[in-house]
Amino acid sequence: MSAVSIHHPLEGLFHPRSIAIIGASKSDRDTGWVGRLLSSGYKGKIYPVNPNAKEIDGLKAYPNIRDIPGVVEYAILNIPAHLTPQAILDCAAKGVKFVHCFTAGFSETGTKKASRLEARIAQIARDRGIRLLGPNCMGIYCPASRMTFNADFPQKRGPVAFVSQSGTEAMRLLFLAHDINIYFSKVISYGNAIDLDAPDFLEYLADDEDTKIIACYIEGSRQVARLTSAVKKCLQKKPVVVLKGGSTRSGAGAVAFHTASPTGSKASWDNFFKKTGAISANTMDEVADIIQTLSRIKPPKGRRVALVGRGGGIGVIAADICERASLEVPSFSNNTRKRLSQIISEVGISTQNPVETMTGMSGAVDFYLRGLSIVDEDTETDIILVQIAIDIYGGRNTDLTPEVRDAAYALCATADSLKKPLAVVLFTGGHPKATKEALITRRILTKAGIPVYSGVESASQAISKVIDYYGNDSGKTKTRFNYL
Amino acid sequence: MSAVSIHHPLEGLFHPRSIAIIGASKSDRDTGWVGRLLSSGYKGKIYPVNPNAKEIDGLKAYPNIRDIPGVVEYAILNIPAHLTPQAILDCAAKGVKFVHCFTAGFSETGTKKASRLEARIAQIARDRGIRLLGPNCMGIYCPASRMTFNADFPQKRGPVAFVSQSGTEAMRLLFLAHDINIYFSKVISYGNAIDLDAPDFLEYLADDEDTKIIACYIEGSRQVARLTSAVKKCLQKKPVVVLKGGSTRSGAGAVAFHTASPTGSKASWDNFFKKTGAISANTMDEVADIIQTLSRIKPPKGRRVALVGRGGGIGVIAADICERASLEVPSFSNNTRKRLSQIISEVGISTQNPVETMTGMSGAVDFYLRGLSIVDEDTETDIILVQIAIDIYGGRNTDLTPEVRDAAYALCATADSLKKPLAVVLFTGGHPKATKEALITRRILTKAGIPVYSGVESASQAISKVIDYYGNDSGKTKTRFNYL
Repeated sequence: MSAVSIHHPLEGLFHPRSIAIIGASKSDRDTGWVGRLLSSGYKGKIYPVNPNAKEIDGLKAYPNIRDIPGVVEYAILNIPAHLTPQAILDCAAKGVKFVHCFTAGFSETGTKKASRLEARIAQIARDRGIRLLGPNCMGIYCPASRMTFNADFPQKRGPVAFVSQSGTEAMRLLFLAHDINIYFSKVISYGNAIDLDAPDFLEYLADDEDTKIIACYIEGSRQVARLTSAVKKCLQKKPVVVLKGGSTRSGAGAVAFHTASPTGSKASWDNFFKKTGAISANTMDEVADIIQTLSRIKPPKGRRVALVGRGGGIGVIAADICERASLEVPSFSNNTRKRLSQIISEVGISTQNPVETMTGMSGAVDFYLRGLSIVDEDTETDIILVQIAIDIYGGRNTDLTPEVRDAAYALCATADSLKKPLAVVLFTGGHPKATKEALITRRILTKAGIPVYSGVESASQAISKVIDYYGNDSGKTKTRFNYL
Repeated sequence: MSAVSIHHPLEGLFHPRSIAIIGASKSDRDTGWVGRLLSSGYKGKIYPVNPNAKEIDGLKAYPNIRDIPGVVEYAILNIPAHLTPQAILDCAAKGVKFVHCFTAGFSETGTKKASRLEARIAQIARDRGIRLLGPNCMGIYCPASRMTFNADFPQKRGPVAFVSQSGTEAMRLLFLAHDINIYFSKVISYGNAIDLDAPDFLEYLADDEDTKIIACYIEGSRQVARLTSAVKKCLQKKPVVVLKGGSTRSGAGAVAFHTASPTGSKASWDNFFKKTGAISANTMDEVADIIQTLSRIKPPKGRRVALVGRGGGIGVIAADICERASLEVPSFSNNTRKRLSQIISEVGISTQNPVETMTGMSGAVDFYLRGLSIVDEDTETDIILVQIAIDIYGGRNTDLTPEVRDAAYALCATADSLKKPLAVVLFTGGHPKATKEALITRRILTKAGIPVYSGVESASQAISKVIDYYGNDSGKTKTRFNYL
């Protein structure tokens, strides 16, 4: 718990000292809420509520939340929708501050009856001073307090917060990020947002010292003006990446049956991005790539890319892709070429930008150890992008492991001494052996703080967007985000 | 060898009865040309030429090609550039028809001297009636004759030809395709193209009955008008996908040091695509995705996509992506919704388009077996796109294998009976266990003829481009490509 946010009214959402699960299933160690909290090591008290059970997962169960002897700060509703109004009244009687309504079956069903029920629980919560999370959402993941909505989520803490209107997208980003060694401070899946909404979380996260980067998946909000202010407030201190779901007609149609949020017009959201300067993403993979770019790439001095990788065609295609992403791939200085030609002895491979490494993984290792520092000193380029194609360099039938590890460690050994930002694109082609090596290589490189992308397109787009973000910072006040 | 092309003058390029390797290294079983041809099982005679060796890899070596007793139909030059003019003269004296100049160090080096040398070997070949492949290229892969430039290439034949100015890109596409069960008739890496150029290969492939789909990686050509005619001729019979390298300033700069081809203006290439109707691709992954779309997707009746997959957010984001790729995700008919609601019992998940499967991999299996046929009969959609997220449905810590296999086989079992085209997007997140399962699932599905993509973006773009291609066919003469 950070000093600044300790008294924030939403602090109890992430650090409740006790949680009641209303509608705990009798044996839910593997799949239910009690089991999740137990297996993640939640630090507070857990009170299962179920009128038909005496004990659940070794914990005493209560027929009603009102019967619990101790203080209950947080309740999760896991009961049929029509029972939620009474449950919230019971929570209010017990003095619960936060109710997470996991239950679905409200306005997203499209029926008037369900919408009326949703309005009624919103009204009850408002009247009784309860802050309601949801309905129709997965709730909170906070490794510091060990709250979680999935037993597979890592217990390791990190600097990224994710505010997501979709629980599945929260899972996707968590898993994508885990695989590139990126971890989270807080993740909030908030569903239909009938009370607590994106602006609430963002206002909190702006001052949360545990959070250095904020990502959002937003389908819509009833409070766009407040959302805009909250994002602006965050951006004064930390970068904000937003994936706006439902920004086409097809997408808006899908939102109606998901969270039933008001998706807004394309113009209004274009305006939101223009006014706030938030970084816009189109896919969850892109969100993950932008997070690792923000975390691991020093702000480049410009948009000129030095491309390193074996294969003339690979260099040509990468150069085209970079330029389409508003980057450039200019020629190296004469001095750089002269110095590179002293270490590259193979005929027919380029010492110009894009520069080629020599044959095989061993040629790549050699270049990482002797060539990268030359490229780093080139006056005509600002960023180094290394392409590694394990199945092309290493073949498919031999044991790739030693050579591929050598290459990964050679890159790590050199990376620290480089002045320019370094990014790596790792191709596999998908062959099981090459894929396995690629996963291990990615783990080694990302652990060393080197960003790894699955293609030049995703790398160049993420880098270009992050340069735009830094470029907006005319006052040069933005921190360098290099703490992962 | 097909009946139509047997007398084509280029037939000997793919089916020579004997090959001399001028500059065979003394022991090159693993890395050299003799070793490659031996290990791939090349069916003709192999003659190593090396003045300093008596025997190479168990084959008698000759000091000069003129010393070989038998007929030599094809020669590979693996010697320093300055020795190539005399070698080509020797080949001419021996009556060789095709010379593949693997040797690099010509115009792509940027020196006048090397460009003069290149002009000189072009002149010698022309004067002596030799067809020259290259220089600076990997040459021919033809599984029917077992010619290859990489011992790891599969011996299995398939219906795709690839005409590539880059050897590395040829390797990339071969490996990418192999992993989705797509195989080749002929692959040509042709480098600087000082004699044989893309139009030569395309004129041949238009009539080649072993080739049903043609892909090209072209950096430039000195014969754009002839290239345009050749592509048009091909397109009367089979689809042509073209990745034009060097179509930006950065890319053109890279081409100068790769094959030194005249890259042409953006306008001229836009015109090429407009005039020919060739399918344009920007990355090699996209080329592979377009090939599998052409091979495995029945021409859809329209652009309306039915999305299937667990997770509301996943559906929303996918719908946005589809619409950005000029597809639509409309509502299902009332009848479809009614029928789907009879098989979907879970609260809070959508029976509308995008439709959700129920919990876990078992929920997915259930939907594949009972829900897909309902979606297939929906009157408002034309294509079915199924999203599978193994680590989200299946978690990360249990043994995923049985459930994931069940899902793959359930999809295969249903696929055959569907009237609408079916496409699958397979996410992994990259976790080793989920990745392994995803690779196996991809193999099962692609073997059954179901196209598998790594994301909704790549799937929707490939499908949209293929619909455009079929749409150009106002006369409905284009074959249905469904033979993989």
